[in-house]
Amino acid sequence: MSGQVEWHNSPIGVFDSGVGGLTVAREIMRQLPNERIVYFGDTARVPYGSKSKETVTKFSRQIVHFLETQQVKAIVAACNTASAYALEELENEVDIPIIGVVKPGARAALAVTKNKKIGVVATEATINSGIYNRYIEENDKNVRIMGKACPLFVPLVEEGLWEDPVTDEIARRYLMELVDSGIDTLILGCTHYPMLRSTVAKIMGNGVTLVNPAYETARELKALLVDKGLESEHRPGLGTELYRFFVSDAADKFQRFANSILPYGILSAKVINIDEF
Amino acid sequence: MSGQVEWHNSPIGVFDSGVGGLTVAREIMRQLPNERIVYFGDTARVPYGSKSKETVTKFSRQIVHFLETQQVKAIVAACNTASAYALEELENEVDIPIIGVVKPGARAALAVTKNKKIGVVATEATINSGIYNRYIEENDKNVRIMGKACPLFVPLVEEGLWEDPVTDEIARRYLMELVDSGIDTLILGCTHYPMLRSTVAKIMGNGVTLVNPAYETARELKALLVDKGLESEHRPGLGTELYRFFVSDAADKFQRFANSILPYGILSAKVINIDEF
Repeated sequence: MSGQVEWHNSPIGVFDSGVGGLTVAREIMRQLPNERIVYFGDTARVPYGSKSKETVTKFSRQIVHFLETQQVKAIVAACNTASAYALEELENEVDIPIIGVVKPGARAALAVTKNKKIGVVATEATINSGIYNRYIEENDKNVRIMGKACPLFVPLVEEGLWEDPVTDEIARRYLMELVDSGIDTLILGCTHYPMLRSTVAKIMGNGVTLVNPAYETARELKALLVDKGLESEHRPGLGTELYRFFVSDAADKFQRFANSILPYGILSAKVINIDEF
Repeated sequence: MSGQVEWHNSPIGVFDSGVGGLTVAREIMRQLPNERIVYFGDTARVPYGSKSKETVTKFSRQIVHFLETQQVKAIVAACNTASAYALEELENEVDIPIIGVVKPGARAALAVTKNKKIGVVATEATINSGIYNRYIEENDKNVRIMGKACPLFVPLVEEGLWEDPVTDEIARRYLMELVDSGIDTLILGCTHYPMLRSTVAKIMGNGVTLVNPAYETARELKALLVDKGLESEHRPGLGTELYRFFVSDAADKFQRFANSILPYGILSAKVINIDEF
């Protein structure tokens, strides 16, 4: 990286397997309103949550290479599965800072828990990776962690059933063992899950604090930019494209979903061939 | 193709976006017990049902190229989305015969319907392609076709909820308009859906005949092989590998699912890098 002068007005690269990472982009927009964002959603190969470490790492590496061509100053892996499987390898391969959503979520949960029993709901891949356990145990060996994969949550969110008796019933089945386990903190370990926040909160009850890694990740990104002297000094003027969106397939559907969760309308998402990166 | 003598003992290539096409492979095993099969499931990029025509065609072309390296004598696109989006283009690109699941399903429905009202349940991509409508209308302009996308059916099947109150409720919501429309025939237009046959049958009632394109496709494949003199003359002997399975990712999960629906245990599925084809 060749000096702050050229870089502090560069955008933040944010990527996810699809639309889920938009919940992280949304938090960055709220907490860092001066920052430009280049978002990439891998809609041609979504979902990552049921795929292997090798495949998720290969896909994530291609995306990082694409984001590098967009001159981003930092990258956020706004996908728990990519953060779990690919982040450590990619950190060693590129010069710009990369942060994921797992460490910020784990740190926030550690700060919140009183009885040292933390639950994690996530995709199969994230749960199988054991990464939340690893980060949490590195910081506090006395914490008990209970993970639960919830494979139907993503399709239910994508079908729009954010509050629905069917979603209640599926959530009840997935979460009952976590309720019984006596956790006081639950990490929403997949970027789609904040959309099910009220359903999950209702089932878990008042005694359980829900941690949204999207919020924590935006906070850590802010600290990172300050630390490295990379924050944008002022809000880009009118006429500057603040947020740009790229996908690997089917931009229409992405735009519809994005417009339902983002505070700003997306004018357009551009389709690129991610295999070339 | 250089003469029947070399080809009639070659395997049939069968492909799908993932595990769904195994329902078609199963029918081929039943109806054509002398035939060897090379199956490819694109588990790294599954599902296809929410992706664009361009992407599905590109993925299908790579798979056809891979199957050619396996010296197959015919190819079955055991995926409604691939059949809908990619088949016509690929038919023109390769020398070996390729059949899909859409035409056989459409033909069977035409043979069954009495009131000339046919329903189709399928993925978003298959419904949006309008391909069932096109095939059916080409044969009979007086038939009315009602299509309905059921995006949660595939994740429900993959989660194992084949018979479950939640699946009943979701199916009821998806199917109610088809019940009200007075169709007498319903095409199960996605290879996962035969696993929900009893749920769908219960909701549609006795007056509606369910068409399983997997069954019809195996019948058409048989006719095609006979027509071209390509049938295997006898069951391959012991020691011959009758069925081989390849996937683009995560062979374990594929094997578990395959073993739950196939009459034969799968000894192993090999992971290949499909991007190279």
